[in-house]
This record gives sequence, structure tokens and C-alpha cells, in this order.
Amino acid sequence: MTSDGAENPRRSQIIEVATELFDRRGYHETTMQAIADGAGIRKASLYYYFRSKEDILVELHETLMTVVIRQHSDRLAAGRLGPPDLLRAMMRDVIGLMESHPGHLRIFFESYRALPLDVRESVSAQRSAYRRMVTDVLVAGQKEGEFADVDPEMAAIAVLSLMNWTYQWFRRSGPLTAEEVADRLWQMLLNGIAPR
Amino acid sequence: MTSDGAENPRRSQIIEVATELFDRRGYHETTMQAIADGAGIRKASLYYYFRSKEDILVELHETLMTVVIRQHSDRLAAGRLGPPDLLRAMMRDVIGLMESHPGHLRIFFESYRALPLDVRESVSAQRSAYRRMVTDVLVAGQKEGEFADVDPEMAAIAVLSLMNWTYQWFRRSGPLTAEEVADRLWQMLLNGIAPR
Repeated sequence: MTSDGAENPRRSQIIEVATELFDRRGYHETTMQAIADGAGIRKASLYYYFRSKEDILVELHETLMTVVIRQHSDRLAAGRLGPPDLLRAMMRDVIGLMESHPGHLRIFFESYRALPLDVRESVSAQRSAYRRMVTDVLVAGQKEGEFADVDPEMAAIAVLSLMNWTYQWFRRSGPLTAEEVADRLWQMLLNGIAPR
Repeated sequence: MTSDGAENPRRSQIIEVATELFDRRGYHETTMQAIADGAGIRKASLYYYFRSKEDILVELHETLMTVVIRQHSDRLAAGRLGPPDLLRAMMRDVIGLMESHPGHLRIFFESYRALPLDVRESVSAQRSAYRRMVTDVLVAGQKEGEFADVDPEMAAIAVLSLMNWTYQWFRRSGPLTAEEVADRLWQMLLNGIAPR
């Protein structure tokens, strides 16, 4: 995948259709024929855009990581937010994928092992980089006295758990928007559930 | 699956072997032949214990839910622990599955959609029942002044996120035991990461 690829409207449409099918039927159960049918194109045309179903999965993975890493990097470069707000923004970014990229997070987490090995390594490296970004925000906040003296690695895992697990339970038809969910989980993470 | 089934040593061994293969290669990529080979039995013998690969998956799902629901019910019946300790115990139960049932949680969460519909409904009902058990502990703790006045539904989701997501990152070869991880996440959930 290249970011150019993701900006080609036909490629994007194919990814949307494929993701919806992967999400509903499962990655393994979805055929290239079903994706072509869903996109309203011929199978030969589909193969012009993607050599295989695996290629679609690869682009989905790389797109998601690129989106959230770029959102955070842009905010860091702008330099306007302190650590607690940066952390909330990251939680909004990832949980926001449930609305901006419906179905993608389930495929991202559950079809990782269907990726070719070299792509797995690259995606795994991006996931580690993102976890370090979370840890860095936590450590910066500790230095500024905004966060307590907790283990930043374990706190980063807690952040990732709260935001990543939303793919298992968040429904776009539910009572809360993704941003509201992000803000409530962030608040709970900051204050905890014990009385203050 | 019946709980009797899980106590038959040959059935248990087959489930162990199958889970290890599902975890390593993926559920869809694992054949009954590979499971028979891994268990050191003939394919015909495997079919005596399980009619299909799906049956093995069903038993895995039902066993896990039965284990954690029973652990909690037994403690409730004993009536010795207050809400914060009950909550910690539940986190130890689920995260403890990473050690007592290695590989099972990944299969549990990632192969849910490969279950036949009627079993999905039954597992989904058990998952809801377990979430309600967590919510009940939180509400009880709020009544006793042990927990702050947070939304118990959202707090239950936070508890489940922290414990369920361990399957994505916890390694038995890592520096912390499952119990240590459970206790640290519980502590973080109680106190939060903002300075007190």
C-alpha cells in the first residue's frame, strides 16, 4: 500500500466494500468474487487494483496505522496541547476510527495473522511505535506533574486496552458518540473509580 | 460441550492440541488431520471425540465462560470479600486464563464469528451475564462507598477492556505473572493516573 493508493477513489471504495464483507462474513470466508460483486466491478478489474485479497488486508492495516500516527505527529508538531489533552486526543483518534473507518478495527486486530510475514513485521513495528508515543506522553506528563508516579509502560497498556477494546462493544447506533466514549474512558483513566 | 466432556482427559488433550494449533496457525488454517496428528491419534479416533472442528471451538468457548463464571459465583456464595477485592479477584480470574488456558483467550475473542449461530447466542448471553456480574460488583461497591460515583456500565467496560486485552500483549515468558498484571491494572483502575 502507498498513501497514494488510499487516495484513489476506486481503491478506497474497494477497501470499504471488502472491509464490510470481512467484518460481516469473516476474512477467510470472503472471496475476491464477492468483493468484485460488492464493488459493482468485474473480477478482472478488481485484480487491476489489488493482486490478491491479502493485498487489500495489507492496505487496510497500513492505512489505519498511518492515520493515527499522523494525527498524533501533527498535534505534536503544532505543540499546543499538554500531556493530558494529548492523551485524550489519541483516545479520540483511535476510538474515532469506529466511526470514520467502521469495521476496520475488528479486521485490524483479528486478521493480523493472515498478513504475510514481512507486512506483519512492519505493522508490528508501527504498533510498537504508537505504544511508545503513548508512553512518551505519559512520561512527559509525569515530568510536568500532570500524571501520578505510575509505571508508564503499564499505564500505556491501560490506555491501549481501553481504546482498542472499543471495537468489541462500541456500536455506532448506540447512545454515545465515539468522542463521548473516548472522553469518558479518559476521565475514568485519570481519576480512577475509587473515591477521591 | 458438557462440563463432563471437559473432564475427560482425552477430550481435554485434544482441546489443548487444537488450541495451540488454532493460536499458532489460525482456526481456519487448521485441519482435523493436523489436530489428530498433534494429538497422536488417528483421524477416525478424533471424530469419535468431536464431530467437527467447530465442535472443538464450541467446547473451548463454553469452557472458558463456565470457568470464570463459576469462580465468581463460588466467591459470591462464600461471601467473604468486599467489592474491591471481588473486582480484583475477577481480574485475576480472567487474566489468569493466560496462564491456565494459554492461547484460549485469543481463539475465544477472534474466532467468535466462526461459531454456529445458536452457540454464538449462548456464548454472547454468557458474556453479557459476566459483564452484569462486574457491573453488580461495581454498584455494590458504590453503595458501600468503596467506589466513586462513576457510570457503572462504563466502569464495567473499562474493567473488561483491561482484562480482556491482555491476550494481545501478555507473554508468559514476560517479567510479570498474570496475577501481578491483574493487581497492577486493578490498582490503576482504582486510583487512576492523575495525581491524588
